[in-house]
Amino acid sequence: FATTPSTGGSAIGVGVDQELISSVPSHNPTFLARNFTDAEIVYCRAQPSPPSSFAARWVGKEAVFKSLGVKSKGAAAAMKDIEILNDELGIPTVRLHGEAKLKAEERGIGKVLISLSHSETVAVAFAQASS
Amino acid sequence: FATTPSTGGSAIGVGVDQELISSVPSHNPTFLARNFTDAEIVYCRAQPSPPSSFAARWVGKEAVFKSLGVKSKGAAAAMKDIEILNDELGIPTVRLHGEAKLKAEERGIGKVLISLSHSETVAVAFAQASS
Amino acid sequence: FATTPSTGGSAIGVGVDQELISSVPSHNPTFLARNFTDAEIVYCRAQPSPPSSFAARWVGKEAVFKSLGVKSKGAAAAMKDIEILNDELGIPTVRLHGEAKLKAEERGIGKVLISLSHSETVAVAFAQASS
Repeated sequence: FATTPSTGGSAIGVGVDQELISSVPSHNPTFLARNFTDAEIVYCRAQPSPPSSFAARWVGKEAVFKSLGVKSKGAAAAMKDIEILNDELGIPTVRLHGEAKLKAEERGIGKVLISLSHSETVAVAFAQASS
Repeated sequence: FATTPSTGGSAIGVGVDQELISSVPSHNPTFLARNFTDAEIVYCRAQPSPPSSFAARWVGKEAVFKSLGVKSKGAAAAMKDIEILNDELGIPTVRLHGEAKLKAEERGIGKVLISLSHSETVAVAFAQASS
Repeated sequence: FATTPSTGGSAIGVGVDQELISSVPSHNPTFLARNFTDAEIVYCRAQPSPPSSFAARWVGKEAVFKSLGVKSKGAAAAMKDIEILNDELGIPTVRLHGEAKLKAEERGIGKVLISLSHSETVAVAFAQASS
């Protein structure tokens, strides 16, 4: 019997996104409430540079959408379906909710890895979706 | 009998590339004809910002070359061997031709995933080649 | 008997990092000696633009740390544990030493792929760790 290793890990999609930090309106409470979960807002507000952290998560969400093979709805509520929080080791980790979760299941995506980076002016993110 | 799952998916190479949009001479018809397929040119010209779309595909082709483990020949004809077109869902998809295709087969590469992004000034691309 | 394909290749972590080339103090010999191996220094000094090459490797090391799921120690000696040298085909290749190597083994990481890119002002790197 083949102990089918539950590794999975076949790459299904990748996503990259970047944005000027100054172009993400993180000072706007309505923008934040529509696009970030409460836990994300708490986390980003506690960081040394909240605008950089919000921008990094913003491009991270967009990168995840690309890796899922679905178009984001821009500033619509769907961005909230992608939640990026740091685990106990400080590694950014993706949790999917709502439609994004359904879409991932449909496509056989079991894991989405993410990495975020920001310089002084630009935030960039990379996401990889695999089975 | 082990139904060898045709997943493949073992990562073989990755590639990242970026470029200032202004440094990609997309206004030059000779440059376009040498480096982009007809379908790519039609697609990019129909986008809201053709220079951004050409630049994104340009760095995309370079990223694919890196993921294949071969050096691109710069502005030479080989860039045309990497064709990046959107599928019916709007997801950028890589098709290999000519030498790039042979090289990929030699290295056991069965799939190349790509993602493209551009801000107002910079285009960035990420490619992942797997078995 | 299942010939467990030694493919591995299950994605374990990804890492992206970017930095302004001008913000990496590659003119400082102490900085170089603490963070780059002798072979890396020899390689970068022989490139057309040593500051760009040092910056690309610098962000490369940071991206690898992210892909391993460990925080780098900033400018501390640990950056030297990540060595990025080009193989005979010119492909940047990661070799791990010391604590970084131990950490990778602990997490079942058998391979780290890397890609580097620099424009005139910015260096960016992407790393992917798999089993």
